[in-house]
Amino acid sequence: MSTRPVLTDQQASEKAQKLFNDIRRTRETDYVNNFWRCLANDPAQASELWSRLQQVMQPGALDPLVKELVYIAVSTANGCNYCIHSHTAAARAKGMSSEQHSELLQVIAMASATNALANALQVPVDDCFDEADAG
Amino acid sequence: MSTRPVLTDQQASEKAQKLFNDIRRTRETDYVNNFWRCLANDPAQASELWSRLQQVMQPGALDPLVKELVYIAVSTANGCNYCIHSHTAAARAKGMSSEQHSELLQVIAMASATNALANALQVPVDDCFDEADAG
Amino acid sequence: MSTRPVLTDQQASEKAQKLFNDIRRTRETDYVNNFWRCLANDPAQASELWSRLQQVMQPGALDPLVKELVYIAVSTANGCNYCIHSHTAAARAKGMSSEQHSELLQVIAMASATNALANALQVPVDDCFDEADAG
Amino acid sequence: MSTRPVLTDQQASEKAQKLFNDIRRTRETDYVNNFWRCLANDPAQASELWSRLQQVMQPGALDPLVKELVYIAVSTANGCNYCIHSHTAAARAKGMSSEQHSELLQVIAMASATNALANALQVPVDDCFDEADAG
Amino acid sequence: MSTRPVLTDQQASEKAQKLFNDIRRTRETDYVNNFWRCLANDPAQASELWSRLQQVMQPGALDPLVKELVYIAVSTANGCNYCIHSHTAAARAKGMSSEQHSELLQVIAMASATNALANALQVPVDDCFDEADAG
Amino acid sequence: MSTRPVLTDQQASEKAQKLFNDIRRTRETDYVNNFWRCLANDPAQASELWSRLQQVMQPGALDPLVKELVYIAVSTANGCNYCIHSHTAAARAKGMSSEQHSELLQVIAMASATNALANALQVPVDDCFDEADAG
Repeated sequence: MSTRPVLTDQQASEKAQKLFNDIRRTRETDYVNNFWRCLANDPAQASELWSRLQQVMQPGALDPLVKELVYIAVSTANGCNYCIHSHTAAARAKGMSSEQHSELLQVIAMASATNALANALQVPVDDCFDEADAG
Repeated sequence: MSTRPVLTDQQASEKAQKLFNDIRRTRETDYVNNFWRCLANDPAQASELWSRLQQVMQPGALDPLVKELVYIAVSTANGCNYCIHSHTAAARAKGMSSEQHSELLQVIAMASATNALANALQVPVDDCFDEADAG
Repeated sequence: MSTRPVLTDQQASEKAQKLFNDIRRTRETDYVNNFWRCLANDPAQASELWSRLQQVMQPGALDPLVKELVYIAVSTANGCNYCIHSHTAAARAKGMSSEQHSELLQVIAMASATNALANALQVPVDDCFDEADAG
Repeated sequence: MSTRPVLTDQQASEKAQKLFNDIRRTRETDYVNNFWRCLANDPAQASELWSRLQQVMQPGALDPLVKELVYIAVSTANGCNYCIHSHTAAARAKGMSSEQHSELLQVIAMASATNALANALQVPVDDCFDEADAG
Repeated sequence: MSTRPVLTDQQASEKAQKLFNDIRRTRETDYVNNFWRCLANDPAQASELWSRLQQVMQPGALDPLVKELVYIAVSTANGCNYCIHSHTAAARAKGMSSEQHSELLQVIAMASATNALANALQVPVDDCFDEADAG
Repeated sequence: MSTRPVLTDQQASEKAQKLFNDIRRTRETDYVNNFWRCLANDPAQASELWSRLQQVMQPGALDPLVKELVYIAVSTANGCNYCIHSHTAAARAKGMSSEQHSELLQVIAMASATNALANALQVPVDDCFDEADAG
């Protein structure tokens, strides 16, 4: 179930089909996942997002696998079922080992627990953490 | 402001003081931050958490800096001001460069945006993402 | 699956049936959706909520469609799958065009991204935003 | 800092002053906290909310202290700093002991950790948990 | 669908099988629910979590049913579908009546509404709520 | 306090200064708020975000004030204090009346309450809400 149609290739507009083909070329697979088929109801936003996503997730000061781990962490905290699934699959495709997955889950669980404790205690932020002044 | 006292060394119980000294030894600094001073109103929980935290954040299949980046990501999505501050400081202490910080923020922002889109569209999860069967 | 029965008309208490009929009259349809059938296990709360909902969503300083868009936005950020579905359908019934839906999603995605950035950066609130003093 | 004025008694409308006095009588204190002074910019909503709050938090199948503990739990997970503060104070006023506070925090931390794990693993809900059928 | 296999007894490692048997003994049932079957892909974390969970949820200054109510509240605010289901079932098994369930939902709904209002209004925390000084 | 410097004009890089001046021109005010001064530590991301923000928030199928109301709603649900402040100020600058603000808060509070109820009840989504098929 979705709030907008999951577009097949036939249903997609010309601009959306162009995006699907770009996704296929980049990922070297014929499969286009539902997120893009659903977002492509607004082909302009979908295309712009796809292009920014490529840029953000490319190798840089952080490597692509680390970026996927961060992506899973955010998606988990936000409770986004789709993104948890798709980015866990992406991390695995980029080489995430079972041990790395386990440690990732441990850090996410630990952070979630201490986030709740720091919130519940309303712990005042230590002055030494401040970076406001660049002077 | 906090919902439990931020304990000074003088106010801390014997067990809490022991924890503070363990924190000092481990981190090689005299400074004990407010989270532990506040949590130490329940010295047993504080000590157990400290010990688990050391274990979870130690080098393993993921390196300690990557774990801090994941910690920041979770804390940001959960809106925990204290943990965002303390773990950004920790990541910096473990060598996070300004470029890495920038890329981390870019991934967090991108994940937050696509989480919202996937939720709003209620995109159905693709069958190919399923790992339920180990067979 | 649900944590309380989804009551059929036959299973509903007299007070719950009265609510279902009120919903039918107001919406001019025979269909009563699962939210009310599930909430009606506590008929008093369900009836009170239904009555407040009518009041809150009626035309006023904001028109009903704008209120539905706000409802979708909150439900998306809270990750409430049911409410995203039901209020997207409601917005469409109140005239939300495909273009409006697209722009709504763009604003939600943008807000989610900048929320994450402002949180991660812990940006201090500018004094000029304060409205605390009515003087 | 707030997004609407924190109304003093002098600044409050007649209806808002009436509410402030009702709060004072009910709580047997002259102090009216900022939440009500801020919400009272919409005196109708403030008065209606105050009346419902009294009803929801009164002794019933659950006792008032348990209700305050649940309130703290929700406010913590939602990251609402104000409500964490005000309802921790309220729970203390209703007799929450230091030991109860400690155990509450332990449950909140444990739930937050397992919520994250269940989300990250996307654990399928067991059929036996379903209550959908009342038959 | 899940991001890691839901392990059958046959697929589980020796350590995981030992955990499953411990769960069976403690709960006096042959049924092991999916959360543990999924988490047991990391048998060390699963076993440690199971042991802490027993400790946190045992009778203490708060009784076990109250702890389950708090667990449901946190899971609801975090939008964790699995935990809402499993802990509602657990609360029912520990004696939660239909009236208690209704009142729990009323408090959760009320807290969610006022959390949003306090956040939207950015109400400044009253000085009298502060517990930072133990002096 | 912030996790990156709040850059003054003097501290800003050339690219960041160019952005600040663009913000000044567009908004017809000399004031540049802290969000941009903080984000400008990564001038490329800041500039790209500023340009996309202008595009997303411009008049279209939804008018700019409606977009601000949606922005406030998302920011409130995400608990982003900075964005709640800045976008409430922006909405006011775009003509949000006190009555509109009150109604916005009422819808946000109502949505937050029913989101929690639908989550806690795990209400199954009605088939009639599905838009997956475009056929």
